[in-house]
Amino acid sequence: MNTYKIAVIPGDGTGPEVTAEAVKVLNAAEDKFGFKFEKTEYDLGGTRYLKTGETLSDETLEELRGYDSILLGAIGHPDIKPGILEKGVLLKARFGLDQYINLRPVKLFPGVETPIKGKGPKEIDYVVVRENTGGVYTGVGGNSQMGTANEVAVQSNVYTRFQVERCLRFAFDYARKYGKKARGAGEDNTLTLVGKTNVLTYVWGLWERAFNEIGDAEYPDIKRAYCHVDAACIYMIQCPEMFDIVVTGNMFGDIITDLGAITQGGLGIAAGGNINPEGVSMFEPIGGTAPSFTGLNQINPLAAILSGAMMIQTLGETEAAEAIENAVRWATANKLKSMAAAQMGYSTTEVGDMVAERIKN
Amino acid sequence: MNTYKIAVIPGDGTGPEVTAEAVKVLNAAEDKFGFKFEKTEYDLGGTRYLKTGETLSDETLEELRGYDSILLGAIGHPDIKPGILEKGVLLKARFGLDQYINLRPVKLFPGVETPIKGKGPKEIDYVVVRENTGGVYTGVGGNSQMGTANEVAVQSNVYTRFQVERCLRFAFDYARKYGKKARGAGEDNTLTLVGKTNVLTYVWGLWERAFNEIGDAEYPDIKRAYCHVDAACIYMIQCPEMFDIVVTGNMFGDIITDLGAITQGGLGIAAGGNINPEGVSMFEPIGGTAPSFTGLNQINPLAAILSGAMMIQTLGETEAAEAIENAVRWATANKLKSMAAAQMGYSTTEVGDMVAERIKN
Ligand SMILES: CC(C)[C@H](C(=O)O)[C@@H](O)C(=O)O
Ligand SMILES: CC(C)[C@H](C(=O)O)[C@@H](O)C(=O)O
Repeated sequence: MNTYKIAVIPGDGTGPEVTAEAVKVLNAAEDKFGFKFEKTEYDLGGTRYLKTGETLSDETLEELRGYDSILLGAIGHPDIKPGILEKGVLLKARFGLDQYINLRPVKLFPGVETPIKGKGPKEIDYVVVRENTGGVYTGVGGNSQMGTANEVAVQSNVYTRFQVERCLRFAFDYARKYGKKARGAGEDNTLTLVGKTNVLTYVWGLWERAFNEIGDAEYPDIKRAYCHVDAACIYMIQCPEMFDIVVTGNMFGDIITDLGAITQGGLGIAAGGNINPEGVSMFEPIGGTAPSFTGLNQINPLAAILSGAMMIQTLGETEAAEAIENAVRWATANKLKSMAAAQMGYSTTEVGDMVAERIKN
Repeated sequence: MNTYKIAVIPGDGTGPEVTAEAVKVLNAAEDKFGFKFEKTEYDLGGTRYLKTGETLSDETLEELRGYDSILLGAIGHPDIKPGILEKGVLLKARFGLDQYINLRPVKLFPGVETPIKGKGPKEIDYVVVRENTGGVYTGVGGNSQMGTANEVAVQSNVYTRFQVERCLRFAFDYARKYGKKARGAGEDNTLTLVGKTNVLTYVWGLWERAFNEIGDAEYPDIKRAYCHVDAACIYMIQCPEMFDIVVTGNMFGDIITDLGAITQGGLGIAAGGNINPEGVSMFEPIGGTAPSFTGLNQINPLAAILSGAMMIQTLGETEAAEAIENAVRWATANKLKSMAAAQMGYSTTEVGDMVAERIKN
């Protein structure tokens, strides 16, 4: 029996609530599909920072390298200055563990209402591969003459060919394996590069050259497309059906995946994975800590549950991952009234229970 | 009688077609409201570049400084490498004439269909003030070891306090003058800063400090709000009614204004202005050259017509600007079947005619 060592970081706000449901569902899958988790909980995030002044220490980061995977709830605190927890915990983990891919499916599940007119699960069904450890997130830059009238702030978007290549290869491979042709939903496996080649010529010139060279040489079977990030936002609303697998940089990926999330019914159902294909990955719902719903048992745990499914999918438990996804699909199609917190028609724990039960049976 | 010297740059693709209608409507306003245009046409853009190799020369740029305003159609050509025309014409004009504001109303006109469920003209009614000559558009950066496996590309987001301040002051002033309270549509004039303070701490730290300092000291009457750019994309779909006047940097502004455009019915109706409040401004529809509709008399000229209205508004002809906007409002409410090219129920010239006629009467 396969055993997986999992670090669980419930985090702040509603993070612990949704993580508990993800764990509940994973336990159900464990029993049914015959693998085992060894879970270790880590107390990280804003609450801890306010108590101890600690974010993610180097020692804890080292420890995290010893796990097979990490399950994260949400990190954030309204009383803490922006940037501290993000850079100190979330980005430190992403960068420190070299999780260079952020994988975000934009899939409208049956029964889930999209705010976009005339679009259904057939049209909203694509995956964004976001580069996750480069670009403007690198932190290169600073402030000169800070606080004066002459202050200059610089924040550099930096990409190396190496970073771009490994991200593109992941995306091309992913398109080959999970593109619309591969999953019987279209004639081609298409990879669309989203960039801004007409203005950010240095960085997006590099991406575009690498995209075409690697595509021609190694993935002639994958259809390639390109669109500017501004146009991509239009198309995600107007004709999301044109997308299959999308690849983009870190900042643009951050933006378009949130836009994608709202088209698929909101943060309650949007899952994500920070992936190091050769190392330790970390899975987290896209949504934040939702302070106004904390402790109310009203937040939607499906995003966390689907993140758990992505985790075991990445660990190789494909059948179990599919079972979780199917159980969620069943719940959205037949049970939940809405994806929004407090409007599901069920409590957080009830949603977790129904998905877990569905998997067992 | 006021006389305005206007440089008209019809540009490429459908640019000349929509510009002709904007000019037609402006002529109608001229007669009715008693001012005069002296128009000079400039042949700039992709077609000219392919013939002569020239983009926007320094001499022409100097000439343009002599006008009261500039009316632009669209610049672009499918056969020209991305970046050449953008940097050589459009951005050269924006930067050269120091048009440091890009003003983009996101207003759903009556009768126009938005792709967003449950939202109408009351909800989709805000204005984005985009910083237009700084940030990552500056062109600071380059490629090291280009074409090798060790290539590094750097594209720097650079903002000075000066740039940030003048943009913010424009936005605060604009909020005071045109915010929801000022136009009788709400209790406050609200200015929302859209940034990414939690990751891009150098640049957005500068923006945030300036925003709060200037707001406290000079605009205590303006309500302030902040949201991250990724969240802003969600809110623009989920609750656009929360926005009044929005201010943001160049790159984020590029992205969110295209998203805004689709929520207001698409590029056919989305107007924009590149504004130098102390100098020569340039007005352009957000849409591109639409190669597939070129020459067919099917493209929607309303975005160009509304850009013309913004132009004369900026020149001080408020009454005439309102008359054009009202005529467009009448056309969308009563005439056009759709904002999409070839689906309006009228030709390009017919739409121009009906708006012009409406103004005259
Ligand atoms: C919280 C923040 C640092 C993070 C990001 O910008 O990547 C979040 O928006 C996300 O998309 O996971
Ligand atoms: C064409 C391009 C250079 C331009 C921009 O990025 O600003 C366009 O997208 C716009 O928004 O006006």
